[in-house]
Amino acid sequence: MEEFENKGGPGRTELEKIGEFGLIERLTRDLPLYHKEHTLKGVGDDAAVLRIPEGHVQLVSKDLLMEGVHFDMTYCPLKHLGYKAIAVNLSDIAAMNGKPLQVLVGIGVSNRYSLEALEELYSGMRLCCERYGVDLVGGDTVSSRSGLAISVTVLGSAPEENVCYRSGAKENDLLCVSGDLGGAYAGLLLLEREKREFLANPAVQPDFKDFSYVLERQLKPEPRLDMVELLARLGVKPTSMIDVSDGLASEILHLSKDSGCGFMLYQSKIPVDAETCKALDMFKILPEVAALSGGEDYELLFTVSQADYPKIKDSREIRIIGHAVEAAQGNYMVPEQGTLIPLSAQGWQAFANRRPEEAGENGEGGEDREAGSFSE
Amino acid sequence: MEEFENKGGPGRTELEKIGEFGLIERLTRDLPLYHKEHTLKGVGDDAAVLRIPEGHVQLVSKDLLMEGVHFDMTYCPLKHLGYKAIAVNLSDIAAMNGKPLQVLVGIGVSNRYSLEALEELYSGMRLCCERYGVDLVGGDTVSSRSGLAISVTVLGSAPEENVCYRSGAKENDLLCVSGDLGGAYAGLLLLEREKREFLANPAVQPDFKDFSYVLERQLKPEPRLDMVELLARLGVKPTSMIDVSDGLASEILHLSKDSGCGFMLYQSKIPVDAETCKALDMFKILPEVAALSGGEDYELLFTVSQADYPKIKDSREIRIIGHAVEAAQGNYMVPEQGTLIPLSAQGWQAFANRRPEEAGENGEGGEDREAGSFSE
Repeated sequence: MEEFENKGGPGRTELEKIGEFGLIERLTRDLPLYHKEHTLKGVGDDAAVLRIPEGHVQLVSKDLLMEGVHFDMTYCPLKHLGYKAIAVNLSDIAAMNGKPLQVLVGIGVSNRYSLEALEELYSGMRLCCERYGVDLVGGDTVSSRSGLAISVTVLGSAPEENVCYRSGAKENDLLCVSGDLGGAYAGLLLLEREKREFLANPAVQPDFKDFSYVLERQLKPEPRLDMVELLARLGVKPTSMIDVSDGLASEILHLSKDSGCGFMLYQSKIPVDAETCKALDMFKILPEVAALSGGEDYELLFTVSQADYPKIKDSREIRIIGHAVEAAQGNYMVPEQGTLIPLSAQGWQAFANRRPEEAGENGEGGEDREAGSFSE
Repeated sequence: MEEFENKGGPGRTELEKIGEFGLIERLTRDLPLYHKEHTLKGVGDDAAVLRIPEGHVQLVSKDLLMEGVHFDMTYCPLKHLGYKAIAVNLSDIAAMNGKPLQVLVGIGVSNRYSLEALEELYSGMRLCCERYGVDLVGGDTVSSRSGLAISVTVLGSAPEENVCYRSGAKENDLLCVSGDLGGAYAGLLLLEREKREFLANPAVQPDFKDFSYVLERQLKPEPRLDMVELLARLGVKPTSMIDVSDGLASEILHLSKDSGCGFMLYQSKIPVDAETCKALDMFKILPEVAALSGGEDYELLFTVSQADYPKIKDSREIRIIGHAVEAAQGNYMVPEQGTLIPLSAQGWQAFANRRPEEAGENGEGGEDREAGSFSE
């Protein structure tokens, strides 16, 4: 994460010194455009003007992220926060099997933030836009009475016949996932523990060695746009697809409901990285529990027809973790031995004061974990 | 405003009772689609899927509105707030000379709000969508630590050759505005006075008779999409256009900067309604000052070539208020007698704690007025 290294304190310019128009101008100065043929006008008019690629339909999604709910400024550096705010939106376009082209950003910010802090946030956003070749075409900054609110809208496109909905899974389809799961949640647990220890004793230095992978999974997730390309290369169109933002269980239930089928998930096939397992073990949390209910992994969960099995079987990035069954059979995790475990959506109880108990687990994970997480 | 009448208290259902997914489902249930040929998938997947009308380019804009900054729950009923949040976004599409097709809504809300309160907010949004035939294609609701945040993204389209930017005004073009100005600000002053009196003595009933027009201008503005249709019927394409969100002065300076010209604004031609004048008089504010710096009128300010003068001269909805000059001449208001008055952008000092002094005015208007106003 070299480009995320702190370059030293840049001073502090109060926002009221430069005013709203000055601020927007400063933050959106010299924005590069990667899609000049599709972005006719970016920042600076009443609306952005875009051209959709010939023969494509448009994909649009948005997210609203609130300080203290979706992120915690105690341990989430602004540059990472900016990067993640864009990345999770790009993930929604990947989940439709599309290509993101533009983003618009709205920021609500209190006087407590300086110009330099906002520039840091924007630098993370720009970096993610650069990495994925996405144009930032709208940047609105307004004042807020308390805390930071980040609103991102992402626009993308795909040939109409390529779009993957949540609703196309059929009985006997294979249930697949990219990458591995549970890492982002393990990273969150580590960061929250450090926050508690820091609050108790600010002199203690955090001990994060050996955990760079799970921390990066939490602080700087990557949208799986490479999977969209891989699937195209393999000649596979998923029958249904969704990204894993709330946890594997919740996403499987979405596919189940929208497709009108059930799913059998094989417990032993759920991919969890070794470092993730090691971190979770410190908190006495089972890897499957983190994968099912942790969320924020931003991997792609999808179904493919059995006929496509030969095309995907040798791909290391695609794991087959289950299969679709008729709706009446329901949704279960299948252990290596013993009885089936019904899947329930822990998901995201955003309005409850406390997080739901982990399924079958009474470890440390049972505490409030709203802070530090992004929702869908 | 019959459809805005309070139908009596609907009870109170706590948000935590129904959870995030239940809430979104409840709020977005039975959403009508007015553009089935262009809205292929609305709420309910990772992204909305849209088709741009043949030969059109796409227009996209977004606004983030924060409680206590852009609106004040003391006097802004939730249904009006919902209506206005959509209306001001549609206004941005009108300002590009386009037609709005879809909106996406993100709401950040604390536990202090009930399900019924959010339904009230959504009912105002739906009403505005219905009136202007716009599809609500995304509805995200997240929790917030304090207050209400509303994020709206609007999508629209226009034939490429019809799009009006801020940048096309030429020397000698006529400067025009739709409707009348200053009313929304007069309504805000009335509401703020009532709030102060209510806080001092809650038994006092507000005396709003004779001021229904200015109150409606503030609480329930309408985007001037009728002007987009009128201009098309008249066969006039404005050379530049913007909507009046921050005040006439600020918008003229935007056109000036982006078009590379100056403007002479005739003081006596600025249209202000009689009721607006009467309300402003109570606060000892000059009508021109409210028009120049009040903002939130959401009228369209545009320039047309002199050659189009015969086409617009008989339209009662279009007022010619000035003309473009070369950039070196600057931007001035021309009084009936006396010296030219330079135009300055009071605009929107969102990050200053207090509002700028009104130009040439030291009346009651000089107090903090951040609350109750929407920015651009």
